[in-house]
Amino acid sequence: MNIAVIGSGMVGVAIGTRLVELGHHVKMGSRTANNPKAVEWAKAAGGGASVGTFADAIRFGEIVFNCALGGASVEVLASAGEEALDGKLLLDISNPLDFSKGMPPTLFVGNTDSLGETIQRAFPKARVVKTLNSIAAPVMVNPALIPGDHDVFVCGNDGSAKAQATDILKNWFGWRSVVDLGDISASRVTEAWVIFWVRIMMLTGSPMHNLKIVR
Amino acid sequence: MNIAVIGSGMVGVAIGTRLVELGHHVKMGSRTANNPKAVEWAKAAGGGASVGTFADAIRFGEIVFNCALGGASVEVLASAGEEALDGKLLLDISNPLDFSKGMPPTLFVGNTDSLGETIQRAFPKARVVKTLNSIAAPVMVNPALIPGDHDVFVCGNDGSAKAQATDILKNWFGWRSVVDLGDISASRVTEAWVIFWVRIMMLTGSPMHNLKIVR
Repeated sequence: MNIAVIGSGMVGVAIGTRLVELGHHVKMGSRTANNPKAVEWAKAAGGGASVGTFADAIRFGEIVFNCALGGASVEVLASAGEEALDGKLLLDISNPLDFSKGMPPTLFVGNTDSLGETIQRAFPKARVVKTLNSIAAPVMVNPALIPGDHDVFVCGNDGSAKAQATDILKNWFGWRSVVDLGDISASRVTEAWVIFWVRIMMLTGSPMHNLKIVR
Repeated sequence: MNIAVIGSGMVGVAIGTRLVELGHHVKMGSRTANNPKAVEWAKAAGGGASVGTFADAIRFGEIVFNCALGGASVEVLASAGEEALDGKLLLDISNPLDFSKGMPPTLFVGNTDSLGETIQRAFPKARVVKTLNSIAAPVMVNPALIPGDHDVFVCGNDGSAKAQATDILKNWFGWRSVVDLGDISASRVTEAWVIFWVRIMMLTGSPMHNLKIVR
């Protein structure tokens, strides 16, 4: 498939690399068409990897992974025009993190709203699924890096989009437990969880942890 | 020991009953000295159980369990005078939940502050430990009700208070895994987690679940 990866940070690189390994054509979008990190990634990933602007990538992708910074996500996703996302599966991995007060970060939207909801409102015809946002980048595409059972969550307003996302998580990335938390408003809790996740990282010195719902 | 349980809801009843079973003298505090729910609890619990006003209970207890509603907690804890809590271990189980917009609730304080911090600021000489707030009442004092490994969290500014709280959680209530999240500001994440917990309860129809940090 033709897939857009929006953002050339650790998350975009991890997701893009795995997708190329799986044989997909992946265009990594950046603010400029020849972002050095994206170009470096494409050289290393080989085969189906290419680079372009955010708008180039969005137009290219049948599926769009939003791996941009939370504060930039709406603007970046709008760069090809709102309608460029119509009907597409938009996997939103971004987080509304505010580091301006240092560590741990705070949320710039939360409690009664979320970034997932903000993105769905901005692109009402995109099929937004919030997922993977609270997991270390290498673990997103290789959950076995953390031994034992642990969970990844999906939420969104479109059931078929969540089914497609669940299939990607299980069959492309290797997740065994995908928990559907309901509509996109559940982004409020998976985004808030990230601050908990950061606290544990600060205590343990490692991002290699995840949660499991025990019941 | 003489222990105060502040509040006669499900949490106060679960905690108070277990403490009496352990042989402690437990005074359950309510808004009135003879709250019917508290009186009923004391009759059922027997032995070391007694009732009184919030102020009566706070004065009585060497340890204070705050099982009051979040919105009432500061006022209720102040009812015996701020100094009545000086030096005491104050186990804060309350949550800043706002149900005014229906289910799931929102938080009336969060992100850059928390109820745990608010209580510590209001009673600066109390040794506040936030714990147990994200766990179903029966599970608080009997974690084996949920099979398998799962975690309870403590946070607070006083290391000896956290050590005492950890001892209570392990040796009185049966918790095997007590995770110290740091100072009282970590209440922000354990209180925010409660909304996640509620969402899972709404999906599964059961409060009998808890989280485990897998790493």
